[in-house]
Order: sequence, then structure tokens, then C-alpha cells
Amino acid sequence: MIKYDEQAELDSVRGALAVRGKIESAVDDICQKGYDLVCFLGIGGTWASALQAESHAKELSDLPIISENASIYNTTGNRRITDKSVVILSSVTGSTSEMVDALRHINEVGATSIGFIDAPGSTLAGMVTHCITYPENEQLKFFMVVDRFMSNAGQFPQYDEYYAQLDAHLAEDLVGVAKAADAFAQDFAEKHHDDALHYFVGAGEQYGSTYSYAMCYWEEQHWIRTKSIHAAEFFHGMLEVIDRDTNVTVFLGEDAERPLAERVAAFLPKVCSRYTLIDSKDYELAGISPEYRGYLSHLVTHQVTNRIDIHIERINCHPMEIRRYYRQIAY
Amino acid sequence: MIKYDEQAELDSVRGALAVRGKIESAVDDICQKGYDLVCFLGIGGTWASALQAESHAKELSDLPIISENASIYNTTGNRRITDKSVVILSSVTGSTSEMVDALRHINEVGATSIGFIDAPGSTLAGMVTHCITYPENEQLKFFMVVDRFMSNAGQFPQYDEYYAQLDAHLAEDLVGVAKAADAFAQDFAEKHHDDALHYFVGAGEQYGSTYSYAMCYWEEQHWIRTKSIHAAEFFHGMLEVIDRDTNVTVFLGEDAERPLAERVAAFLPKVCSRYTLIDSKDYELAGISPEYRGYLSHLVTHQVTNRIDIHIERINCHPMEIRRYYRQIAY
Repeated sequence: MIKYDEQAELDSVRGALAVRGKIESAVDDICQKGYDLVCFLGIGGTWASALQAESHAKELSDLPIISENASIYNTTGNRRITDKSVVILSSVTGSTSEMVDALRHINEVGATSIGFIDAPGSTLAGMVTHCITYPENEQLKFFMVVDRFMSNAGQFPQYDEYYAQLDAHLAEDLVGVAKAADAFAQDFAEKHHDDALHYFVGAGEQYGSTYSYAMCYWEEQHWIRTKSIHAAEFFHGMLEVIDRDTNVTVFLGEDAERPLAERVAAFLPKVCSRYTLIDSKDYELAGISPEYRGYLSHLVTHQVTNRIDIHIERINCHPMEIRRYYRQIAY
Repeated sequence: MIKYDEQAELDSVRGALAVRGKIESAVDDICQKGYDLVCFLGIGGTWASALQAESHAKELSDLPIISENASIYNTTGNRRITDKSVVILSSVTGSTSEMVDALRHINEVGATSIGFIDAPGSTLAGMVTHCITYPENEQLKFFMVVDRFMSNAGQFPQYDEYYAQLDAHLAEDLVGVAKAADAFAQDFAEKHHDDALHYFVGAGEQYGSTYSYAMCYWEEQHWIRTKSIHAAEFFHGMLEVIDRDTNVTVFLGEDAERPLAERVAAFLPKVCSRYTLIDSKDYELAGISPEYRGYLSHLVTHQVTNRIDIHIERINCHPMEIRRYYRQIAY
């Protein structure tokens, strides 16, 4: 497989799972003191991850766990975030200006924060209450936070068994998915690398990753135009612009909202010849109990899209790290 | 002006404002009993209106007012909706299946509901606790609910003065906006009626209407492809696909998030030649205090887009009431 370092992938996931002790320590400390709200704060890709964490929490608990966009917070504010609230954030650079502004105000309010800040010594690293530094695997880190809050509230009794399975199998399983997906990913890239417009549809924990994949990968890194939409909304407007030649990809996960994506998947063949289904069910996760697969579906489909990206990058001769405007000009 | 019945428009808005007594009665009754959550429930266009109501409440209060998508509720659920919660919904037909399913479950939970159901005798009309029947003006009706809840909580002291201004001036003001916008709307329609793809950007109370305008009007009724995006997110991915010939419209309102839309508006001229700004500030609202204009900006821009629609419909010879798939085939 081109551009694939199996050992690095294994190490990356195993290392992220090993961060769990630090997460437990921070969350347990917060739960002991009590809290009125848990708010995942993000912008762009990190906001999309926040939506995924919120969806996961909502499916399994009644805890007050919400997501907030940093730029919206910086203008409209959120008066429900108080000195008893917990803010969870993630940043690769530790310097995203919208996040720095938001956290400055959150610190004035007096909320407690847990920050997954990949750059030690960065601005955000110096501002959060609990700083945890480990690169990448943002969704895994966010979900570990949610699961610990739910477990402490007695609403995720499967915690120990579930994480024992992840520690033992997840890294190898995700490498297996990448390998199993590569031939499909190459075909898909050859068919769609030059699309004028590509639609992506997803639901549940897949919605945040669908939104992020469209915007942060195809738009930002491949410069291909997209629209992403929640499967719940597909039949209330967007369906009317689908015809034979429309490029549509539906992500199917295994959480509670799978039926919403399945409904779109069942409709498309009637009116469209260029649709694709990317279904986490098609990939084996050895050692993971069937009832837990829904918590991991977005990690499975992310392995598939990673392989698509590698092939599009090669075919389009467009290195994914170049930007036209982002951090290139003032705005 | 083609397809414009001034008297009907005046009557429509005045009649909607006259519904306020019924809204106050229902909300006051609920407030007297107490509530733990106010949830605006919708799907498609009504969900977009719910987002607007939520944004308005968030800007001005700390009340627990959220929005929920009916299809998501029907799968993931929302355990925070209890027998002490209030659900607000709106439906033209009173028969939207996702809404009927959601309300059935909400009634089992025991929540109180206020339904703006335009069709008397419809399924939903028979299921809500408080049924209020008056056609159209969905946003106005939702905002009257939010404002009453905020007023009763002491967080909207301007209630009486504000609604006295609306009762006296809003209907005429909105007719004035439609007339003032018509020439611009015709130019815009002539330029963009055949776009292969059109981007719409908005923030704050404009975001829900931006999303709805793209999906429920251009996609569903004109069969023109669109993407809508929150201005808060524009600089985190989507900007990279903007070039000289990209069609982009930014809606600017006058609420707290205006700076987010202004930032996009300031960027576009540097890289794009086919952008348009639709700014509520450009339109007079006689008799409305400047500090209240932000609560009404989405009604102003809706007058502008209504006129655009009339001209696109004429130029494209595509009656807005026809549907390709919606309620035409089974799915």
C-alpha cells in the first residue's frame, strides 16, 4: 500500500488509548467536585469532532453534554457555561485564534477545562486546567472523556469490558480495515477525483465525520467542491437535486441513527447511478463485541476515507498539505 | 411587482402578530407550573426555524431552550426531554410522518406541547397540548414563544415596548422591504438563475434561514444545487474552494453574530468576482428601535429572497410548486 506505515498506525492508536489514565484522573476529579454542564468546544474539524462526542453522549445517557462552536461563543456567548461547567477542547497547533479567544473568556467565567493540545508550550496548553498532550486520534480522546463521564454517572456500565477490548484489539483492527479498504478506495478515487461536486450524507456519530470529511479534506485539502448533509434532512429538500449523474456518498455507521442513512441508501438506486455506500458493517473488528461496534463506526469509515485521500492526492498531483488561502493571506 | 399581493402580505403579518394573546396564555400557563426544558422540534424547514429560535434565545438569555430534529429524536432519542419539558412545533400539513412519530413518543413521555398547526383537524392538531392555528409566519410565531418565555423569566424586559412597535409597524415595514428589494432581486435572479452551484453563508439567526433558503427553496423548489455554511465555519475549510467564478451569497443580519458574516464579506472581494451581500441593514424598518432590528433581520432578508424566488421562477419557467420526488414516489 502506498503511503502507509503500519507500525506508525499501530503505535498511534495504542498510544492514544494509553492516555486513558490521564483522562480518568481529570474526569474523576471533576465528577467528585460536581458539574452543571460538559461542553465540547471546537471550530472546523474540532467542532465536527465535538458534534460526534455530543451524539454519542446523547444516544447513551441523559448527561448535560453539548457542543459549542468557538466563533459562535465569541459573539453570541453561552450563558449556560458557568464556573461549575467543564469545557473539553482539542488543538493540534495550540494557537487557533478563535479557540484562544474563547478559552480566555471561559477562564474568566471560571469553568474547568480539559485540553488535548498536541503542541507543548503553546498558548492553549498554558491556558487549560488539565492539559493532555498526545498527537492525533482526536475522536478517540473525546470519546474516552464522554465514556468516563457516563461511566461515573452509572450510565455506561460496559466501560471496563469495552476498553479492555479496545486496548487488546482496536489498533490491529483499524490497520486491518485500512488494508481491506485500499482496493475499493483506489477505485473510488479513480471515479471521483475530478468531480465538479460531490455530496456526502451521514447520520449519528457519522454526521460530524461526514461534515468534516467534506469540508476539511475534500474542500480544504483536495480543493474539490462538496456538500454534506445529515441523513435526517435528506428527504426534506436535497433529494430534489439528485439525478442520474449526481455524485453521492452515504456513510453508514452502526449506532442508533443507522436507519436514517439506510433510508437514503435505499432511495438512491432509484434515481442515481453514481452513488456509493461506505458502510462500517462491511469491515471486520475482531475481538470487539457486536453491541460496541456503533461506538467505533466513525473510526472504521475514517480508515476508508484515509485511503481514498491517499489515492486522490496521487491521481490529482495535489499534495494535501498545500493551502490556497488558509494562513497564506490576511483575512 | 409581479406576483405580489400587498394587502395579503399586510393581513398575513398582522394576523400572525394577533396570535400573540394565545401564545401568551399557553406560555404563561406553562411557566406557572414550571418546566425543565423548552425544545423546538422540527424537520427540514421547520428544524431550520427551530435553529433560529434557539439562536435568539441563546443570545439573550440563559434559559434551557434547545432545538431537536424529529428524525434524530425518532432514532437516537433525547433523554433530557421529560414530563416537565415543553415541546414547540410547527407544521403546515399537520401530517409530516417524522413529526407525528416524534410527537407520539413525546406524548408518552408526558411533555407539554405547543403546536402551530396550519391544518385544523389534522393528525398533529389532535396530538398537541396547545394547538394554535394560523397560516405561515412560522419564525414570527416561534420568536413570540421564545420572547414570552424570556420575558416571564425577567430576561426580556423590552417585551411590551418591542411588541408594541411590531404591532404598529412590522407589516408595513416588511412590505416596504419587498418593494425596495425587487429591482435588486431581479438583477440577482438574472445573474444566478442558471448557476451550477451556489454557496450561501450566514450566521446567528440568519443561519437557520440560510440553511433553509439553500435547501428548501433553491434545491427543493428551483432544483438548483447549493451549499450552505455557517459563517463561523467558512474559514476552516470551505474558503479553499472559492475562486474568481464561484457564486457566493452572504446574508448579514444585525444580531450578535454579524461580525462573523462581515469577516466573510470582507474576504470575498479579494478572491471572488461573483459574490453578493444581502444585508438587512440596507433596508428601512420605520418605527422599530435600532436595538431591536437584530431580532427581525431574518424577516427582512426573507422578504428579499422571496422576491428573488419570484424572478427565478419566471426566468427558469419552473413553477416552484412542482416536485420531482417529494411525495411523488415511495421512499
